[in-house]
Amino acid sequence: MYDVNLIRRDFPILSREVNGRPLVYLDNGASAQKPQVVIDAVTRGYAEDYANVHRGLHYLSNLSTEKYEAVRGTIARFLNAPHEDEVVFTSGSTEGINLVSYGWAAPRLQTGDEIILSVMEHHANIVPWHFLRERQGVVLKWVEIDANGDLDPQAVLDAITPKTKLIAITHMSNVLGSVVDVAAICKGAKDKGVPVLVDGSQSAVHMPIDLSTLGADFFAITGHKLYGPSGSGAIWISRERQAEMRPFLGGGDMIREVTREAVTWADPPMKFEAGTPGIVQQIGLGAALDYLMALGMENVAAHERRIRDYARAKLDGLNWLNVQGNSATKGAIFSFTLDGAAHAHDISTVLDKRGIAVRAGTHCAMPLMEHLGVGATCRASFALYNTEAEVDALVSALELCHDLFS
Amino acid sequence: MYDVNLIRRDFPILSREVNGRPLVYLDNGASAQKPQVVIDAVTRGYAEDYANVHRGLHYLSNLSTEKYEAVRGTIARFLNAPHEDEVVFTSGSTEGINLVSYGWAAPRLQTGDEIILSVMEHHANIVPWHFLRERQGVVLKWVEIDANGDLDPQAVLDAITPKTKLIAITHMSNVLGSVVDVAAICKGAKDKGVPVLVDGSQSAVHMPIDLSTLGADFFAITGHKLYGPSGSGAIWISRERQAEMRPFLGGGDMIREVTREAVTWADPPMKFEAGTPGIVQQIGLGAALDYLMALGMENVAAHERRIRDYARAKLDGLNWLNVQGNSATKGAIFSFTLDGAAHAHDISTVLDKRGIAVRAGTHCAMPLMEHLGVGATCRASFALYNTEAEVDALVSALELCHDLFS
Repeated sequence: MYDVNLIRRDFPILSREVNGRPLVYLDNGASAQKPQVVIDAVTRGYAEDYANVHRGLHYLSNLSTEKYEAVRGTIARFLNAPHEDEVVFTSGSTEGINLVSYGWAAPRLQTGDEIILSVMEHHANIVPWHFLRERQGVVLKWVEIDANGDLDPQAVLDAITPKTKLIAITHMSNVLGSVVDVAAICKGAKDKGVPVLVDGSQSAVHMPIDLSTLGADFFAITGHKLYGPSGSGAIWISRERQAEMRPFLGGGDMIREVTREAVTWADPPMKFEAGTPGIVQQIGLGAALDYLMALGMENVAAHERRIRDYARAKLDGLNWLNVQGNSATKGAIFSFTLDGAAHAHDISTVLDKRGIAVRAGTHCAMPLMEHLGVGATCRASFALYNTEAEVDALVSALELCHDLFS
Repeated sequence: MYDVNLIRRDFPILSREVNGRPLVYLDNGASAQKPQVVIDAVTRGYAEDYANVHRGLHYLSNLSTEKYEAVRGTIARFLNAPHEDEVVFTSGSTEGINLVSYGWAAPRLQTGDEIILSVMEHHANIVPWHFLRERQGVVLKWVEIDANGDLDPQAVLDAITPKTKLIAITHMSNVLGSVVDVAAICKGAKDKGVPVLVDGSQSAVHMPIDLSTLGADFFAITGHKLYGPSGSGAIWISRERQAEMRPFLGGGDMIREVTREAVTWADPPMKFEAGTPGIVQQIGLGAALDYLMALGMENVAAHERRIRDYARAKLDGLNWLNVQGNSATKGAIFSFTLDGAAHAHDISTVLDKRGIAVRAGTHCAMPLMEHLGVGATCRASFALYNTEAEVDALVSALELCHDLFS
């Protein structure tokens, strides 16, 4: 039994007020709030158990190392990854995707080689590839989405040529909520020998992930969207791809031996983790994923489908509201504009006065904005703790906007 | 009046026991413990004020952004940096130095160009330069230290040739405690047109820093050694060098505009900060630096000099103990081995049984270990909260080691 009101009590911030109104937090696509178990894990990490990892032999260092390294297994369980050593700790998806760009792609791709992207990628899954275009003449090929915001897997596979060296694709749009059938893309790409990087920044938050069957080569997640601390995250990289990669960040921990003349590397995943890591953040991420697994990601997904359906029905009733993306299988993410003059930023300001936090802007997805033909949208993105009553509050505030600006 | 016993009460972990003994934490060179004000700032950051930064227009996002961005000014004040926009947030010194290696050096240095390092650099200030040696034929030139562990600034300047493009030098050795006269190096290097990167990972923890007079081009600090959260940090980069740099990590926040064909960059420092940053960690670092500034870094330094002098006198009395490095101006960091068979790891294990946390190993400084002719050392590194009584506890435990292993 998924009792959202009970679950809400686990998140201390949800009981606060904003501008004299109860907080209605609908900016989960940007970052999620943290349950008390995560905050407690972080507090305890600093107040009782803190020391650097991998480096000492004393009690606190061993304790800290054990707790930190255990999170690798937690992440592997959460993603149903085949091997724990395929989990590389990062500070988030941005660092993870840059790791692949610098460590795997940069030394392998030549001028004229192609990377396939969809038009609804987040900048984190665009800019690292633009670097390769700028610096070494790699070609970016963009695959369109349809009017509903769906991406046809076959369109991605059809874009493959002998020059294609990588497909880098989102699993769930942070703007439209569209879910991409990445399993079909991975299967078809594997047949053609093209590796696939999946940006799981949104999908891992909203649905169960099974890397043992997905067929991806790289799968990036970001901890702060997963109800974990800021600065936490990981990228899963198959052993086969890890073996092809050179190190990215250089420093302590990732080396075997350093002399004046040469360096040899530690084995993966350590090879890709330089310096003192985000120790306490990753321990906090472990607590967040344990929390999610205790709830059950199937249950979280079912709750969010209910919220999505309720919100879709309500928003569909507002004939002056233009919702971008209407995929049948989308997640509970709604980007919209209002007929008339109201700018997305004005809408968000009005909503904020009523305690409702949404995001306004380009959502780190400018190519998608261009595709949609809008300068900016307002986005309400829901999470495991949101309620139908919060949808009602949003709708009521939007009606106020409509009155104000029409 | 610097009352160390009062100060100790600010650090909750210092009242815990380890192996049935009061914790004597002498592993500060690896990472420092956190005062309650830092833990409270982190807790509050998650439990009351959390949202993503730079991205929303709603109340919590604005609040979070204000608190986060204010830390840039705090860091600038702490380092007495000329301009706040010269502070680039990082996850620590490792990321900061890699930013310089990838963003400034890699696109500028040619085969045969030289980088000057001292033999007592930390791996974080070695491996990023080894990348350039491996990948583009840059030559690493090593400057020796003398028998006391001191580095002659003139020896560094004498190593400059017309091929020298960078000097990358520690301000304080994490193994020996030796303090380098980086001001003299910066002055001489400036006359010859050679930029200087200073690794301030240790020095900023133990002495006042004045970047307005130091003359460096790059100055890296790491938050977790500065009593701040893991995963926090910054690198100060002069405007002149920032203007010469290309971006390093690609993603959200660091762009001005992204299209399918091109990207333009945000102005520095944002140009060098990609994706959702370590929001709450940096807010925690701000609290740590405020704490340090309230104590006064001159007072911290004076306290640590007292501890150093006391420890030096006591350890000098142990004629079976070999302390590495005896610089007159060193910080309170003591690396040592024992006559006879005892391995550094065995010593640390015995000390740990008495609640004393020291580090054993190569301290991410293998070239220095080779220079010293030792495989590993034990290191006791002191901090603002350590006491003479803790020095006594260390000495007593070392005498036990001597009895056990001699």
